[in-house]
Amino acid sequence: MADVVESTARPTLAPLLSVRQGKKAVDFYKAAFGATVLSYVESPDGEVVAEMRIGASSLWVADESPENKNFSPESLDGSTARMVLVVDDPDAAFNRALGAGATIVYEVADQRYGWRVGRLADPFGHHWEIGKPLS
Amino acid sequence: MADVVESTARPTLAPLLSVRQGKKAVDFYKAAFGATVLSYVESPDGEVVAEMRIGASSLWVADESPENKNFSPESLDGSTARMVLVVDDPDAAFNRALGAGATIVYEVADQRYGWRVGRLADPFGHHWEIGKPLS
Repeated sequence: MADVVESTARPTLAPLLSVRQGKKAVDFYKAAFGATVLSYVESPDGEVVAEMRIGASSLWVADESPENKNFSPESLDGSTARMVLVVDDPDAAFNRALGAGATIVYEVADQRYGWRVGRLADPFGHHWEIGKPLS
Repeated sequence: MADVVESTARPTLAPLLSVRQGKKAVDFYKAAFGATVLSYVESPDGEVVAEMRIGASSLWVADESPENKNFSPESLDGSTARMVLVVDDPDAAFNRALGAGATIVYEVADQRYGWRVGRLADPFGHHWEIGKPLS
Protein backbone atom coordinates (compact mmCIF):
# COMPACT_ATOMS: atom_id res chain seq x y z
CA MET A 1 0.00 0.00 0.00
CA ALA A 2 2.95 2.32 0.46
CA ASP A 3 3.20 2.82 -3.28
CA VAL A 4 -0.40 3.94 -3.49
CA VAL A 5 0.00 6.44 -0.68
CA GLU A 6 3.15 7.87 -2.18
CA SER A 7 1.69 8.27 -5.63
CA THR A 8 -1.50 10.01 -4.54
CA ALA A 9 -0.64 12.11 -1.49
CA ARG A 10 0.41 15.71 -2.13
CA PRO A 11 4.03 16.20 -1.01
CA THR A 12 4.88 18.73 1.67
CA LEU A 13 6.99 20.82 -0.69
CA ALA A 14 6.71 21.39 -4.42
CA PRO A 15 8.43 23.92 -6.64
CA LEU A 16 6.34 26.22 -8.82
CA LEU A 17 8.14 27.18 -12.01
CA SER A 18 7.33 30.49 -13.64
CA VAL A 19 7.51 30.33 -17.41
CA ARG A 20 6.52 32.07 -20.58
CA GLN A 21 4.18 29.94 -22.71
CA GLY A 22 2.77 27.85 -19.86
CA LYS A 23 0.75 25.62 -22.16
CA LYS A 24 3.83 24.61 -24.10
CA ALA A 25 5.76 24.10 -20.88
CA VAL A 26 3.16 21.65 -19.58
CA ASP A 27 3.42 19.66 -22.80
CA PHE A 28 7.19 19.74 -22.63
CA TYR A 29 7.35 18.43 -19.05
CA LYS A 30 5.01 15.60 -20.05
CA ALA A 31 7.17 14.64 -23.01
CA ALA A 32 10.55 15.25 -21.40
CA PHE A 33 10.06 13.81 -17.92
CA GLY A 34 6.89 11.73 -18.14
CA ALA A 35 5.05 14.19 -15.91
CA THR A 36 1.30 13.79 -15.54
CA VAL A 37 -1.20 16.59 -15.02
CA LEU A 38 -3.09 16.59 -11.72
CA SER A 39 -4.91 19.89 -12.19
CA TYR A 40 -5.01 22.44 -14.96
CA VAL A 41 -6.62 25.86 -14.91
CA GLU A 42 -6.56 28.11 -17.95
CA SER A 43 -7.64 31.73 -17.79
CA PRO A 44 -9.55 33.42 -20.61
CA ASP A 45 -6.32 34.99 -21.87
CA GLY A 46 -4.68 31.56 -22.19
CA GLU A 47 -2.50 31.65 -19.11
CA VAL A 48 -2.27 28.39 -17.20
CA VAL A 49 -1.60 27.10 -13.72
CA ALA A 50 -0.95 23.36 -13.68
CA GLU A 51 -0.08 20.93 -10.94
CA MET A 52 1.96 18.06 -12.32
CA ARG A 53 3.32 14.86 -10.88
CA ILE A 54 6.72 13.31 -11.56
CA GLY A 55 7.15 10.04 -9.71
CA ALA A 56 5.83 10.71 -6.21
CA SER A 57 6.74 14.41 -6.43
CA SER A 58 4.73 17.43 -7.49
CA LEU A 59 5.70 20.30 -9.75
CA TRP A 60 3.61 23.39 -10.43
CA VAL A 61 3.93 25.29 -13.69
CA ALA A 62 2.43 28.73 -14.27
CA ASP A 63 2.74 31.61 -16.67
CA GLU A 64 4.85 34.34 -15.24
CA SER A 65 3.34 37.53 -13.83
CA PRO A 66 6.14 39.99 -13.15
CA GLU A 67 3.64 42.38 -11.53
CA ASN A 68 3.27 39.72 -8.82
CA LYS A 69 7.02 39.04 -8.63
CA ASN A 70 6.68 35.78 -10.55
CA PHE A 71 9.48 35.93 -13.11
CA SER A 72 10.37 33.49 -15.86
CA PRO A 73 14.03 32.71 -16.50
CA GLU A 74 13.62 34.51 -19.82
CA SER A 75 12.63 37.70 -18.01
CA LEU A 76 15.58 37.56 -15.59
CA ASP A 77 18.08 35.97 -17.98
CA GLY A 78 18.79 33.17 -15.53
CA SER A 79 17.13 31.03 -12.88
CA THR A 80 17.34 31.02 -9.11
CA ALA A 81 16.43 27.38 -8.47
CA ARG A 82 17.26 24.24 -10.35
CA MET A 83 15.39 20.99 -10.30
CA VAL A 84 17.12 17.87 -8.98
CA LEU A 85 15.55 14.81 -10.58
CA VAL A 86 16.56 11.46 -9.12
CA VAL A 87 15.97 8.50 -11.42
CA ASP A 88 17.19 4.93 -11.79
CA ASP A 89 18.68 5.55 -15.24
CA PRO A 90 20.00 9.12 -15.56
CA ASP A 91 21.38 8.55 -19.05
CA ALA A 92 18.04 7.41 -20.43
CA ALA A 93 16.10 10.18 -18.69
CA PHE A 94 18.59 12.78 -19.90
CA ASN A 95 18.34 11.59 -23.49
CA ARG A 96 14.56 11.53 -23.37
CA ALA A 97 14.53 15.17 -22.29
CA LEU A 98 17.00 16.09 -25.02
CA GLY A 99 14.74 14.42 -27.53
CA ALA A 100 11.85 16.54 -26.30
CA GLY A 101 13.80 19.76 -26.84
CA ALA A 102 16.07 20.35 -23.85
CA THR A 103 19.66 21.46 -24.37
CA ILE A 104 22.81 20.20 -22.69
CA VAL A 105 24.53 22.24 -19.97
CA TYR A 106 26.84 19.33 -19.17
CA GLU A 107 26.63 15.66 -20.11
CA VAL A 108 25.77 12.86 -17.70
CA ALA A 109 28.93 11.67 -15.95
CA ASP A 110 30.14 10.29 -12.66
CA GLN A 111 30.80 13.32 -10.45
CA ARG A 112 33.45 13.55 -7.74
CA TYR A 113 30.74 14.16 -5.14
CA GLY A 114 29.41 10.64 -5.61
CA TRP A 115 26.53 11.05 -8.02
CA ARG A 116 26.09 10.26 -11.69
CA VAL A 117 24.54 13.50 -12.97
CA GLY A 118 23.97 15.54 -16.09
CA ARG A 119 22.50 19.00 -16.37
CA LEU A 120 20.22 20.40 -19.03
CA ALA A 121 18.25 23.52 -19.73
CA ASP A 122 14.62 23.21 -20.72
CA PRO A 123 13.20 25.42 -23.51
CA PHE A 124 11.77 27.80 -20.87
CA GLY A 125 15.10 28.48 -19.16
CA HIS A 126 14.80 26.21 -16.13
CA HIS A 127 17.73 23.91 -15.40
CA TRP A 128 17.49 20.27 -14.40
CA GLU A 129 20.11 18.06 -12.78
CA ILE A 130 19.22 14.46 -13.60
CA GLY A 131 21.04 11.79 -11.71
CA LYS A 132 21.34 9.29 -8.91
CA PRO A 133 23.75 8.54 -6.09
CA LEU A 134 26.54 6.20 -7.16
CA SER A 135 26.48 4.16 -3.96
CA MET B 1 5.52 1.22 7.52
CA ALA B 2 4.43 3.69 4.87
CA ASP B 3 5.48 6.58 7.10
CA VAL B 4 8.96 5.19 7.45
CA VAL B 5 9.38 4.74 3.73
CA GLU B 6 8.14 8.22 2.99
CA SER B 7 10.38 9.87 5.54
CA THR B 8 13.59 8.19 4.45
CA ALA B 9 13.34 7.69 0.69
CA ARG B 10 14.71 10.48 -1.50
CA PRO B 11 11.88 12.07 -3.49
CA THR B 12 11.97 11.98 -7.27
CA LEU B 13 12.13 15.75 -7.56
CA ALA B 14 13.63 18.35 -5.25
CA PRO B 15 14.30 22.03 -5.82
CA LEU B 16 17.80 23.40 -5.29
CA LEU B 17 17.75 27.00 -4.14
CA SER B 18 20.69 29.23 -5.00
CA VAL B 19 21.43 31.77 -2.28
CA ARG B 20 24.02 34.15 -0.98
CA GLN B 21 25.16 33.20 2.53
CA GLY B 22 24.33 29.51 2.29
CA LYS B 23 25.24 28.81 5.90
CA LYS B 24 22.74 31.36 7.14
CA ALA B 25 20.12 30.07 4.73
CA VAL B 26 20.42 26.54 6.12
CA ASP B 27 19.93 27.89 9.63
CA PHE B 28 16.97 29.95 8.49
CA TYR B 29 15.19 27.03 6.82
CA LYS B 30 15.66 24.99 10.00
CA ALA B 31 14.17 27.73 12.16
CA ALA B 32 11.46 28.87 9.77
CA PHE B 33 10.15 25.59 8.41
CA GLY B 34 11.50 22.93 10.75
CA ALA B 35 13.76 21.58 8.03
CA THR B 36 16.35 19.01 9.00
CA VAL B 37 19.78 18.57 7.43
CA LEU B 38 20.43 15.31 5.58
CA SER B 39 23.83 16.18 4.18
CA TYR B 40 26.08 19.19 4.45
CA VAL B 41 29.26 19.89 2.54
CA GLU B 42 31.29 23.03 3.16
CA SER B 43 34.14 24.02 0.91
CA PRO B 44 37.33 25.66 2.24
CA ASP B 45 36.01 29.08 1.25
CA GLY B 46 32.87 28.58 3.35
CA GLU B 47 30.42 27.81 0.57
CA VAL B 48 27.90 25.11 1.35
CA VAL B 49 25.75 22.54 -0.41
CA ALA B 50 23.10 21.09 1.89
CA GLU B 51 20.32 18.59 1.37
CA MET B 52 17.45 19.30 3.73
CA ARG B 53 14.19 17.56 4.49
CA ILE B 54 10.84 19.22 5.14
CA GLY B 55 8.16 16.65 5.89
CA ALA B 56 8.68 13.89 3.33
CA SER B 57 10.14 16.35 0.79
CA SER B 58 13.70 17.36 0.06
CA LEU B 59 15.15 20.80 -0.52
CA TRP B 60 18.70 21.56 -1.58
CA VAL B 61 20.40 24.81 -0.63
CA ALA B 62 23.67 26.01 -2.13
CA ASP B 63 25.69 29.16 -2.44
CA GLU B 64 25.25 30.74 -5.82
CA SER B 65 27.87 30.47 -8.54
CA PRO B 66 26.91 32.81 -11.36
CA GLU B 67 29.80 31.46 -13.43
CA ASN B 68 27.88 28.16 -13.49
CA LYS B 69 24.53 29.84 -14.13
CA ASN B 70 23.42 29.36 -10.52
CA PHE B 71 21.98 32.73 -9.54
CA SER B 72 20.60 33.89 -6.22
CA PRO B 73 17.45 36.03 -6.19
CA GLU B 74 19.65 38.87 -4.97
CA SER B 75 21.77 38.64 -8.10
CA LEU B 76 18.78 38.64 -10.46
CA ASP B 77 16.53 40.89 -8.37
CA GLY B 78 13.75 38.32 -8.39
CA SER B 79 13.15 34.58 -8.40
CA THR B 80 12.03 32.18 -11.09
CA ALA B 81 10.49 29.49 -8.89
CA ARG B 82 8.53 29.69 -5.70
CA MET B 83 8.13 27.02 -3.07
CA VAL B 84 4.66 25.64 -2.37
CA LEU B 85 4.56 24.32 1.19
CA VAL B 86 1.48 22.30 2.14
CA VAL B 87 0.83 22.08 5.87
CA ASP B 88 -2.07 21.30 8.19
CA ASP B 89 -1.99 24.74 9.81
CA PRO B 90 -0.90 27.42 7.33
CA ASP B 91 -1.41 30.26 9.80
CA ALA B 92 0.89 28.71 12.39
CA ALA B 93 3.54 27.79 9.81
CA PHE B 94 3.40 31.27 8.31
CA ASN B 95 3.84 32.94 11.67
CA ARG B 96 6.71 30.67 12.60
CA ALA B 97 8.53 31.69 9.42
CA LEU B 98 7.85 35.37 10.09
CA GLY B 99 9.29 34.94 13.55
CA ALA B 100 12.44 33.50 12.01
CA GLY B 101 12.89 36.53 9.75
CA ALA B 102 10.69 36.11 6.68
CA THR B 103 8.66 39.04 5.38
CA ILE B 104 5.05 39.14 4.23
CA VAL B 105 4.17 39.27 0.53
CA TYR B 106 0.50 38.65 1.32
CA GLU B 107 -1.17 37.39 4.47
CA VAL B 108 -2.71 33.95 4.86
CA ALA B 109 -6.32 34.03 3.62
CA ASP B 110 -8.90 31.85 1.90
CA GLN B 111 -8.25 32.22 -1.83
CA ARG B 112 -10.88 32.04 -4.56
CA TYR B 113 -9.08 29.06 -6.10
CA GLY B 114 -9.91 26.92 -3.09
CA TRP B 115 -6.82 27.08 -0.94
CA ARG B 116 -5.99 28.87 2.28
CA VAL B 117 -2.61 30.41 1.44
CA GLY B 118 -0.20 33.15 2.43
CA ARG B 119 2.99 34.15 0.69
CA LEU B 120 6.24 35.31 2.20
CA ALA B 121 9.75 36.14 1.11
CA ASP B 122 12.66 34.59 2.94
CA PRO B 123 15.74 36.68 3.79
CA PHE B 124 17.53 35.27 0.73
CA GLY B 125 14.90 36.36 -1.76
CA HIS B 126 13.05 33.08 -2.32
CA HIS B 127 9.27 33.16 -2.05
CA TRP B 128 7.12 30.60 -0.28
CA GLU B 129 3.41 29.96 -0.59
CA ILE B 130 2.26 28.26 2.60
CA GLY B 131 -1.19 26.75 2.59
CA LYS B 132 -3.54 23.86 2.21
CA PRO B 133 -6.58 23.00 0.10
CA LEU B 134 -9.81 24.16 1.70
CA SER B 135 -11.76 21.04 0.81
